[in-house]
Amino acid sequence: MTASLRVALAGIGTVGAGVAKALQERKDELASRAGRPLELVAVSARDRKKPRGVDLAHLHWADDPVALAKCDADVVVELIGGEEVARATVEAALRSGKHVVTANKALLASSGVALARLAEERKLALKFEAAVAGGIPVVKALRESLVTYGIDAVRGILNGTCNFILTEMEATGRSFVEVLKEAQRLGYAESDPALDVGGADTAHKLALLSSLAFGTAPDLDHMRIEGIEHIKPEDIRYAHEFGFRIKLLGIARRLGKGIDQRVQPSMVRAGTPLADVSGPFNAVVADAGAAGHFFFEGRGAGEGPTASAVIADLVDIARGNIGPAFGKPVARLEMLAPADSGLAATAVYLRFEVFDVPGVLAEIAGHLAECGVSIESMLQRGRSPGEPVSIVMITHETQHAAVERALKVIARSDKVRERPCMIPMEPA
Amino acid sequence: MTASLRVALAGIGTVGAGVAKALQERKDELASRAGRPLELVAVSARDRKKPRGVDLAHLHWADDPVALAKCDADVVVELIGGEEVARATVEAALRSGKHVVTANKALLASSGVALARLAEERKLALKFEAAVAGGIPVVKALRESLVTYGIDAVRGILNGTCNFILTEMEATGRSFVEVLKEAQRLGYAESDPALDVGGADTAHKLALLSSLAFGTAPDLDHMRIEGIEHIKPEDIRYAHEFGFRIKLLGIARRLGKGIDQRVQPSMVRAGTPLADVSGPFNAVVADAGAAGHFFFEGRGAGEGPTASAVIADLVDIARGNIGPAFGKPVARLEMLAPADSGLAATAVYLRFEVFDVPGVLAEIAGHLAECGVSIESMLQRGRSPGEPVSIVMITHETQHAAVERALKVIARSDKVRERPCMIPMEPA
Repeated sequence: MTASLRVALAGIGTVGAGVAKALQERKDELASRAGRPLELVAVSARDRKKPRGVDLAHLHWADDPVALAKCDADVVVELIGGEEVARATVEAALRSGKHVVTANKALLASSGVALARLAEERKLALKFEAAVAGGIPVVKALRESLVTYGIDAVRGILNGTCNFILTEMEATGRSFVEVLKEAQRLGYAESDPALDVGGADTAHKLALLSSLAFGTAPDLDHMRIEGIEHIKPEDIRYAHEFGFRIKLLGIARRLGKGIDQRVQPSMVRAGTPLADVSGPFNAVVADAGAAGHFFFEGRGAGEGPTASAVIADLVDIARGNIGPAFGKPVARLEMLAPADSGLAATAVYLRFEVFDVPGVLAEIAGHLAECGVSIESMLQRGRSPGEPVSIVMITHETQHAAVERALKVIARSDKVRERPCMIPMEPA
Repeated sequence: MTASLRVALAGIGTVGAGVAKALQERKDELASRAGRPLELVAVSARDRKKPRGVDLAHLHWADDPVALAKCDADVVVELIGGEEVARATVEAALRSGKHVVTANKALLASSGVALARLAEERKLALKFEAAVAGGIPVVKALRESLVTYGIDAVRGILNGTCNFILTEMEATGRSFVEVLKEAQRLGYAESDPALDVGGADTAHKLALLSSLAFGTAPDLDHMRIEGIEHIKPEDIRYAHEFGFRIKLLGIARRLGKGIDQRVQPSMVRAGTPLADVSGPFNAVVADAGAAGHFFFEGRGAGEGPTASAVIADLVDIARGNIGPAFGKPVARLEMLAPADSGLAATAVYLRFEVFDVPGVLAEIAGHLAECGVSIESMLQRGRSPGEPVSIVMITHETQHAAVERALKVIARSDKVRERPCMIPMEPA
């Protein structure tokens, strides 16, 4: 057996401790999978004394992750999170000739190309299975397995916090705010939940999936991002009546000559695999041309799933499976234009909160018709006479741009109480 | 860019032609994914003149695949099928220093260890993504990705023909024989369907999954194999009434100190991912310890999915990702004892066809109770008075050995018209 792969670990939170534990407890098994031992030699963390359930006393300790990145090791695992220190750590590691494994989607979505170039110039690995969909090996699948016919579209439930909240809202009928508070109490949501519920975390992950799928540079700048904060219990209820569930999806697809990337709450038909993904689970669907439609599901976060992905990358590196970070050399990554988002066309769900006055339905229907939007089904729930009512519609497949044009006009009507809600239907 | 990977293709049926086509049509894209061109240089097939929708005239043709295996190439793709000629081809290829990619599950299930040893001694690749679950990259996932915590169990719908037949039986209420005939007419079933419907094809694939999951040598000899021929429309109907679907599963799990491997029709709870896999699709569930539960679904056969998997293996080889065929060096593959199958314990579905005479239920219930089998729910469907009736039961979780003991006694009763039907419930 060849020399061990010497691992330095920057950041020892839950996941880092999990990595350290698994490297110790599964030592022999991992050595035979990797063809050589995986040996944790150095760590860095702010607090040396914090109990972590794993003995790290015998290791080289660096207080500063950048110093750690320059220590005597073959690979640096970056689990610090955030952008600045993490970027400095990854750069220092690559510049001093070390492979890098990271779970940092934000860093890669913004600086992935520069870091991949740095790795490539030095024939080093930059691996990030843990950055997307936790333990699901979807980074590897898109990078190495589903390459024969290319990918037409990739869609996923990529944020477990949002999926937990939507699942709970559906199960209990409670509001977004109430369920968010419960999720925070249970530790499923951060005390500052904006990155999750606002869609940015999903966007970071989608940028990486999209890059791997289409052979393009990650592109966060041309992405439509919408979170779940405005989803109301009644939308979830109406969705259910029409046979759908609301999921926050990251969607990237070829559209015209470009790539359409969007993070948005979406109606997914009940009984399809994506609709059935519940609680903190993640899932990814890939339309791989003649190879067909693939579906992957698993735990999207947490110690075990994330450590599993980190160590899989270490095994790859130990075996010499280096390859380019995004599946192609940086020079071959295309810069595909963002798709004209007006081209996106699906059926959509619309909810209007209106005053119960004569002519309101005629006015809404008229504006929709003028913009060429035709209605597939509709329901109206009255409250007491004269009280506000909800009008809910599902359209036929229609260009989103046309719907948005109509909604802009409708929103100005004095018969309409609030901004209309639009949720696209997406294939599962 | 380095020299091209020169590919020789033995067997040009539907899949082989698909591989040749994709290598031509996706040349540039595949070269950038693989780091070098993948170049088809030689082929062999019985009939040179057969129209295949792809121009192979400029290639080196060998009439004999063993001769092909010795030609000037870097890798031989074996798509001949069958065992004898295929084994000779793979052996000749490895002995003459060529990597091998094969879709041949029967060959690998029986001779995998010997061939893997041959490859390993010569530092050659022996890859077989296409042998299991078509385009789903589950071989790679088990070999490289889900290794951190090991696997406790792997279950799958691995034969599209069986799944198509069961799906059709459920949709139409028709008998196994009728639906099989239709499947043959549609080209979904072979004219000799025994390998599919009898469970052997699933068994071959399960042996490979099991080996990859547990780091053991493929073992076909200690596997309980049951096909779908005896599944009746009424079993499917009763399953539906109890909230289940019948699927032919390949199941491998750690049980006691051994591995329990079985191919059997199984009751899977409706609404779970495995239950929703319909028609010719395949799916695999892996319980990966602390990493959680993973679910993979996709097309299990056909030109596109299979060619996709073959070419993914070629890309791996082009990149130098060689590694041991079964994830560990042959010398490290364990020979785990088969589990004492009496230890297997799940709830089971039982159907008894009985004569409608006093005391029959008491007799059946008595024998089950004597063997310690307790009933969770039951239904009895009468026909005309005095006519035969069906008694259907779901047991609580119980050791299969106990149920089988009871059934043996019950089958001898003169009140029972035919061998009782037992279908285990399996988690999805």
